[in-house]
Amino acid sequence: MIYLDNSATTKPYDDVLQSYITVAQNYFGNPSSLHALGGEAERLLSQSRSVIAGLLGVKHTEIVFTSGGTEGNNLAIKGTAIALRSRGRHIITTAVEHASVSEAFKQLETLGFEVTYVPVDENGAVSVQSIEQALRHDTVLVSIIHVNNETGAVQPIAEIGRLLRKHPKVRFHTDHVQGVGKVPLAFYDANIDLCTISGHKFHGVKGTGILYVREGVLLDPILSGGQQESQYRAGTENLPGIVAMAKALRMTLEKQENKIRHLNEMKQALLSFFGSMPNVILNTPNASAPHIVNVSFPGLKPEVIVHALEERDIFVSTKSACSSKAKEVSHVLLEMGRGREAAESAIRISLSVENTMSEIQQFQQIVQEVIPKLYEVTR
Amino acid sequence: MIYLDNSATTKPYDDVLQSYITVAQNYFGNPSSLHALGGEAERLLSQSRSVIAGLLGVKHTEIVFTSGGTEGNNLAIKGTAIALRSRGRHIITTAVEHASVSEAFKQLETLGFEVTYVPVDENGAVSVQSIEQALRHDTVLVSIIHVNNETGAVQPIAEIGRLLRKHPKVRFHTDHVQGVGKVPLAFYDANIDLCTISGHKFHGVKGTGILYVREGVLLDPILSGGQQESQYRAGTENLPGIVAMAKALRMTLEKQENKIRHLNEMKQALLSFFGSMPNVILNTPNASAPHIVNVSFPGLKPEVIVHALEERDIFVSTKSACSSKAKEVSHVLLEMGRGREAAESAIRISLSVENTMSEIQQFQQIVQEVIPKLYEVTR
Repeated sequence: MIYLDNSATTKPYDDVLQSYITVAQNYFGNPSSLHALGGEAERLLSQSRSVIAGLLGVKHTEIVFTSGGTEGNNLAIKGTAIALRSRGRHIITTAVEHASVSEAFKQLETLGFEVTYVPVDENGAVSVQSIEQALRHDTVLVSIIHVNNETGAVQPIAEIGRLLRKHPKVRFHTDHVQGVGKVPLAFYDANIDLCTISGHKFHGVKGTGILYVREGVLLDPILSGGQQESQYRAGTENLPGIVAMAKALRMTLEKQENKIRHLNEMKQALLSFFGSMPNVILNTPNASAPHIVNVSFPGLKPEVIVHALEERDIFVSTKSACSSKAKEVSHVLLEMGRGREAAESAIRISLSVENTMSEIQQFQQIVQEVIPKLYEVTR
Repeated sequence: MIYLDNSATTKPYDDVLQSYITVAQNYFGNPSSLHALGGEAERLLSQSRSVIAGLLGVKHTEIVFTSGGTEGNNLAIKGTAIALRSRGRHIITTAVEHASVSEAFKQLETLGFEVTYVPVDENGAVSVQSIEQALRHDTVLVSIIHVNNETGAVQPIAEIGRLLRKHPKVRFHTDHVQGVGKVPLAFYDANIDLCTISGHKFHGVKGTGILYVREGVLLDPILSGGQQESQYRAGTENLPGIVAMAKALRMTLEKQENKIRHLNEMKQALLSFFGSMPNVILNTPNASAPHIVNVSFPGLKPEVIVHALEERDIFVSTKSACSSKAKEVSHVLLEMGRGREAAESAIRISLSVENTMSEIQQFQQIVQEVIPKLYEVTR
């Protein structure tokens, strides 16, 4: 099997699963319980929080554990909008966000908020000027994806953060789900207030995530209740999942430069390969993350390519997993002005450090066999 | 170790953890992915949904997977209130709910909803009449806990459901987190629209839960995004956790009558024992769940009792784990009119089918040694 759909989800590392099981068996107490079993669970929770904060270069009090990327994005966006609603009801995002951001914005529109959807250029990037132009006196939030989940395009988060230093009342959120371990992001330097991370995208377990909440940032909880997570997020903590995520993050960020280099080598090989194929459109821009390659095969249906490759034990995807069953064309590619033909024939190859150059070579060989046959059939 | 804090959380069954690991290792695909790995994950998800629906006696389309009880309660309550806000802004609950319900109601108050908090009698029960009296033309939701998490008091859910049949525009939600496997509840017969369940309360893993959403019931999602869970709840499904929860629920509901009898025997033994102790106040009413015993030791601080017992390797709790660190007295006992002395000296013993009568006897023996000593110290 050659698994090249790592932006949809990753296989948990064996060591990560081992941590999960150890904690689930031996530290099953509720961290909120007053007794010793609660106490040792609470210590393990606190230790995981410190490890993660250290890896991300932030304070442990700035780490809020969530059930994943969707929850993190919803908490950051709705939590900010509701908390600051008396100050302003204008919020800004881009036209190329993950569904968990764009749908949260749409829901807020039905609740009386006004949204500006900033467009992107042909490389999928927003410009700092377009954000500046969108700002109003009643803007309370700017939310921008760091690494686009379909194309790998990287947004100028640090530059936008710099702009927003001049607008200290505006909260700045970034969806970093695809960026962790692939495109380093310094939260403080980039002036980020809120940053979403998902555990299962870097070989952690599903149902785990982190929302970085900068000290002093107000949020109305979307999950109200007990006093867990500084009252930003109630609910019994998923301790085995959290410990497993801390381990996965440590493993991911260890020797990060080597890993990024390895990813980049595989990406470059893929780009050269697809660049040499006739009729292929490269959708991944130059300034992009090292683990995502998006290409279109005009005239072919992407789901047909996915199934043809899966028969050869290779797994790639059409667009985002979260929207892959909606039979629409890629709105991200349309927003980049790639045209309908490209937008309705795109596949995404997404890499993990676990992939090898030998797998990439096998993949290329099989693509060379499979794609011409598909074109023959459709001719 | 004698663990008697099963209402805070339970130890996952070994078979449940085994299922978790098998799925996490072998079915790691994203159920939303179009390829075969996604397909087999989707089949497993769908199979778990059917198993759970069958066990609960509802349709598989009525099962929404969540991250736990807090999310289920928040989704049911906020999702209903927001979805029906144009029809009415009056919502009803009781004065003795879990924090994840009462805090959700408080948050809705800040958003312009009006809440009636129905009181309880000395047994901790709400009356059907008091619900009827609270109903208004603009009421959109009634939310009532089934089994109280502090005292085990059982609310007349079926009777209230019957009343609400005459008010078909009012949605009926119950927090069934403490009831599953202990106090059977027929969702259709009781006319329930929304019902919350949490996996880690019946030996499943943390971070898993179910919201039963009756066919046709409208909810605005609190986690917006992809099209998972019929668009009631976006986010990559925690498949290993869900499969593990299905297994835990099956194990819990197998031979349920025998298990309830076993729990009841232990509970009765505890009630007789505490009834025979001087100065002890029994807070658990007669009509109560088989797994919770709540007693007060006037003059003693509950956290002191918890720590004295933990030194003997016995684990009980003060009130709800989710609020045990807030140094307040039990609002549930105050609402029952038990007085401040009882409300500030209560401990909760909560049982699992895994507990044995021999453990209960050991527990009683240790209580007989520990409590008089604590009274001596405080005298």
